[in-house]
Amino acid sequence: MKVRKAVITAAGKNQRSLPLQTLIDSDGIQKSALRIIVEEALSAGVEAICVVVSPGDEESYREAAGDLRNWLHFVEQPAPKGYANAIACAREFTAHEPFLHLVGDHLYWSAGPTRCARQLTETAAAESCTVSAVQATRESMLPYYGTVGGRRVAGKPRLYLIENVIEKPTPTEAEQRLLVPGLRSGHYLCFFGMHVLTPAVMNLLEDGSSLSSALAMLAGKERCLAAEIEGLRYDIGVKYGLLTAQLALALGGKDREGVLAHLVELLASRELSQAGVAGRGEEGQ
Amino acid sequence: MKVRKAVITAAGKNQRSLPLQTLIDSDGIQKSALRIIVEEALSAGVEAICVVVSPGDEESYREAAGDLRNWLHFVEQPAPKGYANAIACAREFTAHEPFLHLVGDHLYWSAGPTRCARQLTETAAAESCTVSAVQATRESMLPYYGTVGGRRVAGKPRLYLIENVIEKPTPTEAEQRLLVPGLRSGHYLCFFGMHVLTPAVMNLLEDGSSLSSALAMLAGKERCLAAEIEGLRYDIGVKYGLLTAQLALALGGKDREGVLAHLVELLASRELSQAGVAGRGEEGQ
Repeated sequence: MKVRKAVITAAGKNQRSLPLQTLIDSDGIQKSALRIIVEEALSAGVEAICVVVSPGDEESYREAAGDLRNWLHFVEQPAPKGYANAIACAREFTAHEPFLHLVGDHLYWSAGPTRCARQLTETAAAESCTVSAVQATRESMLPYYGTVGGRRVAGKPRLYLIENVIEKPTPTEAEQRLLVPGLRSGHYLCFFGMHVLTPAVMNLLEDGSSLSSALAMLAGKERCLAAEIEGLRYDIGVKYGLLTAQLALALGGKDREGVLAHLVELLASRELSQAGVAGRGEEGQ
Repeated sequence: MKVRKAVITAAGKNQRSLPLQTLIDSDGIQKSALRIIVEEALSAGVEAICVVVSPGDEESYREAAGDLRNWLHFVEQPAPKGYANAIACAREFTAHEPFLHLVGDHLYWSAGPTRCARQLTETAAAESCTVSAVQATRESMLPYYGTVGGRRVAGKPRLYLIENVIEKPTPTEAEQRLLVPGLRSGHYLCFFGMHVLTPAVMNLLEDGSSLSSALAMLAGKERCLAAEIEGLRYDIGVKYGLLTAQLALALGGKDREGVLAHLVELLASRELSQAGVAGRGEEGQ
């Protein structure tokens, strides 16, 4: 199964300006968050990308993509009818093909040489079915994520057959319906913010519902897998999420030594400042 | 001298998206950089603010100011004729009044209870003349700043009479023309990114020239002072400038303890990740 298309959703009310935020990527180059996400998609081998935006946002997003703008198609979500509806807005673009879906408010760091989205599309290509990227996540984080339950695929240590999906489950729901044999105690398989979806999902995405409920239905109709990704995800939409993502990109990239040194210097100078010597020979940077 | 107006320049080609960047201020509240700058100006007692923008940027800037948008007037800089020309674009707005000038790519942290811009307008009110905010800065930073030379005002430990101003001086120029008696060795008085300017400056701002050269001329005509500010400036336009400013705001603000703890946790988890356990029970945040 070849994944040639990607859909990035970025129409959420509180999410609209996030893809326009400027970060320095792990290659040391300054880019918008949108561009980093677009590069993630292109690294996975897709040939066309649809960005779902709020009405009026196309121009600023196009500009934020820089010289990758020609890879992008834009579709507006006419009314703020939620995340599942936003994916469904790309139905004409995806047509009868499977597609990679990325959310517009997450950035990724891969622990190995293969980027996270590519790990996912390679798995989908090998398994020829829907695959959701997941990560073993502490119970305390359940209020933030869609979570899957299922069982390991024999002989494939990072693959799971999805049997249940619940959006932001309570600890009780999770314990009763989402326990996965073999995971570390108190951990669940939570969404990582990227999926390869078969076109059948488009008929299951209803207004106001969640991708989790659509996937739960899809898993009742066809084989759906969850793949543990070797990497980390950073939600830039939460408080200090941009700061965390920027630090993570810097510490995992080519500017690592410089940023670590800078961090120590900043902490030291701030302590001096707070001891009352600010403005007496200390620089602001 | 009462300073009732402020001019924020944000039309620089590489600077346009900076005021739209999202940060969490030292009060723990998420805002655009523009809003933080507008709050800085309002804290100084001004009653109207003019933002000089590139054509087409007014709408996104107005949105980024949130509920402070009604304080703002917008003026477009028709062509990218540089920083001095951008200030001159606000000539009708400032009319015959002195004004506070802030640049759109700096954020400030005050070492005391009085915000940096207010320290400056209070000095200008007391001295009734042009006052540039400065900071004693290491020689190695001269390539980044306008720099003033002069002598101390008797009896006023943080005030200097400006005799020379050079934009980004070489170390030789600085040593020959900008040495200030009494400063720590190897240090010069560099601009802090805020000024109170008398209306006479508007006739001295020529296309392609710098504010430094205009101020050098102004200092030949009327009394101009430099005031050392008790605080630190953060240039968000340089590489990792946003990261540094965000960390500084957080470490000097109400979220200090939480962010320090988060920082330590992030550093620890990244080291674990790089040791090869990524994706095996570690969260992305």
